[in-house]
Amino acid sequence: MIDSYSKSITNLIEEFEKFPSIGHKTAVRMAFHVLNLSEQDAQDFAMSIINAKKNLKYCDKCFNITDNNPCDICASPKRDISTICVVQDVKDIIAMERTHEYKGLYHVLHGAISPMNGIGPNDIKIKELLDRLKDDTVKEIILATNPNIEGEATAMYIAKLINPLGIEVTRIAHGIPIGGDIEYTDEVTLCKALEGRRKV
Amino acid sequence: MIDSYSKSITNLIEEFEKFPSIGHKTAVRMAFHVLNLSEQDAQDFAMSIINAKKNLKYCDKCFNITDNNPCDICASPKRDISTICVVQDVKDIIAMERTHEYKGLYHVLHGAISPMNGIGPNDIKIKELLDRLKDDTVKEIILATNPNIEGEATAMYIAKLINPLGIEVTRIAHGIPIGGDIEYTDEVTLCKALEGRRKV
Repeated sequence: MIDSYSKSITNLIEEFEKFPSIGHKTAVRMAFHVLNLSEQDAQDFAMSIINAKKNLKYCDKCFNITDNNPCDICASPKRDISTICVVQDVKDIIAMERTHEYKGLYHVLHGAISPMNGIGPNDIKIKELLDRLKDDTVKEIILATNPNIEGEATAMYIAKLINPLGIEVTRIAHGIPIGGDIEYTDEVTLCKALEGRRKV
Repeated sequence: MIDSYSKSITNLIEEFEKFPSIGHKTAVRMAFHVLNLSEQDAQDFAMSIINAKKNLKYCDKCFNITDNNPCDICASPKRDISTICVVQDVKDIIAMERTHEYKGLYHVLHGAISPMNGIGPNDIKIKELLDRLKDDTVKEIILATNPNIEGEATAMYIAKLINPLGIEVTRIAHGIPIGGDIEYTDEVTLCKALEGRRKV
């Protein structure tokens, strides 16, 4: 029985299967998509992978992924340099930017403290954040790590380090998402929503 | 506002978005997966794309995708060369092989007759199929095109051409799939299932 494709296709299918959320069937469909591309398009695709990897640089200041160093946000004269929003991941910057509300700078930690996974404070960019606070331009640190155990622990840890420096440290609010339903909101979120209640 | 990633990442995301069933969010996740690969792994991935495209060959006999020509099935001494199973797509061969039942050869049409999409009998490998019947070794042609309008039309067209040659032409059975439910079976399938009823 011939139960598999020829070697070079099998290779390609296996490469696609390594991706997150890509199962065998999707990988097969993607591999056949590649086979149906023109020679030039396949070449372009392969080059975009190599280029993305080769051009990948982190901003020396905020550790955002960037083609230029410092990154466009750090280099922009329009941004408020007195505020730094601390996020876990590069993707979180895009999410924050989409609000059109935040005008300050960012700092990407590239992870969160997670003793379970062997990630300590020295494995993420906390030291680099403290280095940015030395010249007194920063007045507020907004902690926008994820609202889960690791994110909260990281936020608490950073708050403890920065509070003594006389810089304001804030945490983004937790509560019921817009469009959400109180009936179906989990009790932890509801607790946080109550805790964070405000006068109207 | 910075609402997009740096250029080389955006390029890569766009390349992934071209794939079938890959939306923007999955494409972003896949692009970041590439960025997190080691330099070597990214290189391997890129090469597997180029290689698959470069090594892509069709078997001269059955038009299966293969690294060797003729393909492993056509070259195997264990296969029954008196039967050819006609399928629309290379992927259908793998599906048929998975049954472990079929021991004959294949012929991949690479499509089906579809006047709506401007695909006529000369655009798929029908002529090549007829060429294979000239030396009298083939005794049976099994038509395993898809059970839809195009597949049926293609099967009928091929049957009409081959019947006069004195070669047996059969069509795979249509009916209720195993594990299916009569209540939820569409009427066309049910009709086919009735038509194809057999004595038990």
